[in-house]
Amino acid sequence: MEEIKIHLTEKEIPEQWYNIQADLPRPLPPMMSPVTKKPATPPELTPLFPEALIMQEVSKERWIDIPEELRDLIRQNRPTPLYRARSLEKLLDTPAKIYYKYEGVNASGSHKLNTALAQAWYNKQEDVKRLATETGAGQWGSALSMACAILNMKCTVYMVKVSYQQKPYRKSLMQLFGAEVFASPTNRTNAGRSILAENPDSLGSLGIAISEAVEDAATHDDTKYTLGSVLNHVLMHQTLIGLEAKKQLEKAGDYPDIVIGCVGGGSNFGGIANPFLMDKLQGLRKNLRVIAVEPAACPSLTKGVYAYDYGDSTGLGPIAKMYTLGHTFMPAGIHAGGLRYHGMSPIVSMLYNEKIIEAVSYLQNPVFEAAVMFARSESIVPAPESAHAIRAAIDEALKAKAAGEKKVILFNLSGHGHFDMAAYDNYLSGNLVDFAYPTEKVHEALSHLPKI
Amino acid sequence: MEEIKIHLTEKEIPEQWYNIQADLPRPLPPMMSPVTKKPATPPELTPLFPEALIMQEVSKERWIDIPEELRDLIRQNRPTPLYRARSLEKLLDTPAKIYYKYEGVNASGSHKLNTALAQAWYNKQEDVKRLATETGAGQWGSALSMACAILNMKCTVYMVKVSYQQKPYRKSLMQLFGAEVFASPTNRTNAGRSILAENPDSLGSLGIAISEAVEDAATHDDTKYTLGSVLNHVLMHQTLIGLEAKKQLEKAGDYPDIVIGCVGGGSNFGGIANPFLMDKLQGLRKNLRVIAVEPAACPSLTKGVYAYDYGDSTGLGPIAKMYTLGHTFMPAGIHAGGLRYHGMSPIVSMLYNEKIIEAVSYLQNPVFEAAVMFARSESIVPAPESAHAIRAAIDEALKAKAAGEKKVILFNLSGHGHFDMAAYDNYLSGNLVDFAYPTEKVHEALSHLPKI
Repeated sequence: MEEIKIHLTEKEIPEQWYNIQADLPRPLPPMMSPVTKKPATPPELTPLFPEALIMQEVSKERWIDIPEELRDLIRQNRPTPLYRARSLEKLLDTPAKIYYKYEGVNASGSHKLNTALAQAWYNKQEDVKRLATETGAGQWGSALSMACAILNMKCTVYMVKVSYQQKPYRKSLMQLFGAEVFASPTNRTNAGRSILAENPDSLGSLGIAISEAVEDAATHDDTKYTLGSVLNHVLMHQTLIGLEAKKQLEKAGDYPDIVIGCVGGGSNFGGIANPFLMDKLQGLRKNLRVIAVEPAACPSLTKGVYAYDYGDSTGLGPIAKMYTLGHTFMPAGIHAGGLRYHGMSPIVSMLYNEKIIEAVSYLQNPVFEAAVMFARSESIVPAPESAHAIRAAIDEALKAKAAGEKKVILFNLSGHGHFDMAAYDNYLSGNLVDFAYPTEKVHEALSHLPKI
Repeated sequence: MEEIKIHLTEKEIPEQWYNIQADLPRPLPPMMSPVTKKPATPPELTPLFPEALIMQEVSKERWIDIPEELRDLIRQNRPTPLYRARSLEKLLDTPAKIYYKYEGVNASGSHKLNTALAQAWYNKQEDVKRLATETGAGQWGSALSMACAILNMKCTVYMVKVSYQQKPYRKSLMQLFGAEVFASPTNRTNAGRSILAENPDSLGSLGIAISEAVEDAATHDDTKYTLGSVLNHVLMHQTLIGLEAKKQLEKAGDYPDIVIGCVGGGSNFGGIANPFLMDKLQGLRKNLRVIAVEPAACPSLTKGVYAYDYGDSTGLGPIAKMYTLGHTFMPAGIHAGGLRYHGMSPIVSMLYNEKIIEAVSYLQNPVFEAAVMFARSESIVPAPESAHAIRAAIDEALKAKAAGEKKVILFNLSGHGHFDMAAYDNYLSGNLVDFAYPTEKVHEALSHLPKI
């Protein structure tokens, strides 16, 4: 009997993270200081990040050890299962094998806990008492709140207002874990106040919330900033996903032809993809296809430019070379709140620019259609973000069917949708609006890129 | 390294259910017909239940085979993990070992799926097209909706109005799985209309919703009724929980001194407890303590009477010998909606009446206090129902600490609380009201017991 859920023991949790910087075709362009517009030096980052994470951010070591004490915390919620999607395969009547790694089994509901625990732990080692952060859909805020509860640290979350309104129970979840949560833009920071002065009805954005959290950290000695995506060390912490999936597929006797992840900032995508991309970059799996899936309402890769831009909306944070829609771009209030980010991880950006990975974008309705098909066949309710990956996986499985090819498809089911029922209500009642790329707004936003 | 989550493979899922009727000290008193007030004959039950389940209901066979096709469906979501609560133990500084079986990992969020799948499958074998049921907190309705989606059957859910209002997203979840959901009392049935005529503002109760679902099934040829708790076959389907837990504890080299479950209708309690009670009833574990935990607002065991009463509120359904608060008793709108039932499983009732098990009741606030302690230490958000078991487990662990005893405590964490964030909000903001047993109302309700 072939197991549906391919299991690993707690002992099989990876002991090292994989750092793709060791295998990239060229070094990542340096991050720039928002003040000097010159490469940011580590000391410029210390008001925001603990030293250990700054070192990870710039490291070119291929493997970085996970401290034993941290591994002991990680195993409360890992390894996560790898499922063979046998019911979905049957429904699609496809010769393709579909596997998914399910990261929604922990109470915070997504993969974000992987880096939340790591970041909180390294901060705690350097005696940081409080962590400030932003959250979009709420997954990252939930994960960091949970990590802070585990490590007995304080946590302040700036939650994008549109998500705060759409998902009040995400806020409650963070409060249950002891965090303080504010709807961003707030009037607690200069960044928030300046946005509110311009537009008192602002629904917020990840970029604005980042500005607020960065300012909070920079202006309080006992506090550091944490980011749930985009940065190199964040993607590295997420490689637990792909490293586990590799072991699990090996047990099943398979290796993927196609690896799929949704992208907002790029962390769950990097988490599932990078350990497989290692094989491609090292020339072992030249034909491996890796697909990043983004919403048509916020298509950083498929419609953005590869340029230096601010990571946040008001120009307080570091400047990175990445695919961007412009840091002042304000995406529509789609339900996949976690994918409403103007930029993209520099690592994912380089991989895309070098044509090592592909990208595709979808409107909301086809994404929810895939989510409902998946829920009814596989008995898991996916987060709207993760449903982007499902849509692409289904389409690849249907292509394989048309071509009569036995492809092996792996996608990352990055989180559950238990806090997204309003979105499902909206879809099921036929009220979901499709927002596509608003060309003129992006052109406007791109005129504000910093001169580097 | 000792694993925190004790794992079983899919092959280790039990191949038989345990039927405690084989080991009870005396036969269960027969179920009575609401029409004749005489023992109900199987043919009287066939408008409501498929034959296979009626046979299970009255069977005295100790072990009943789980059909292979059903086992194949079960393993999509089983086995469930057994956790060692090391963080909670540390927090309590107790010498006791605390284990919990976590049934909330499937998307419906609770143990209810165990019997939902079984009941739907047996109905399908007998060519039933639609299932009608009631739901309180929504866990049962979610589970049956999911089972019907898996088996491609129609599903109609009568949801207790107070829960429908408190937990709109439970309704959305059922709709996502394709079910039709009505707030009960409805005006679709005579039962509902008669309640509404008396009290148009009725918040409903499990008893009323049962009446509506029973009437729906009895008046439609292609439709049968399903009950999520109380009945013997339901408790039997749930023994997957305790049978798995036994195997898992064996792997850990332990056997419990105390087994704990919350009780509403009794199914998750019977599921975890009965396989251990087998050892006690067979004289192998005479000192085993088994504790049923109920809300002080609906204390069937600790304040009810052991008597024949209707399972539903309007006297349509069968009459059972059980602990009851009277079928017209209307419990307060506490957040543990799944525990708001006037009666109790006949099996659990006999076990309690024979002093084979103990019972204890708690007010809402101490229960939520335990839930928050648990969430912040163990990183799982418990359902308010399950939190009753946590409260009792914590109290037993503290008693063990006071006595300096190394007790082994096992409790069933029957479901997650992802759809109960309004309740947590209410508790965290200090607005949760403690409802205790309203003596005068129960006395009134007990005056309406049927004469048998």
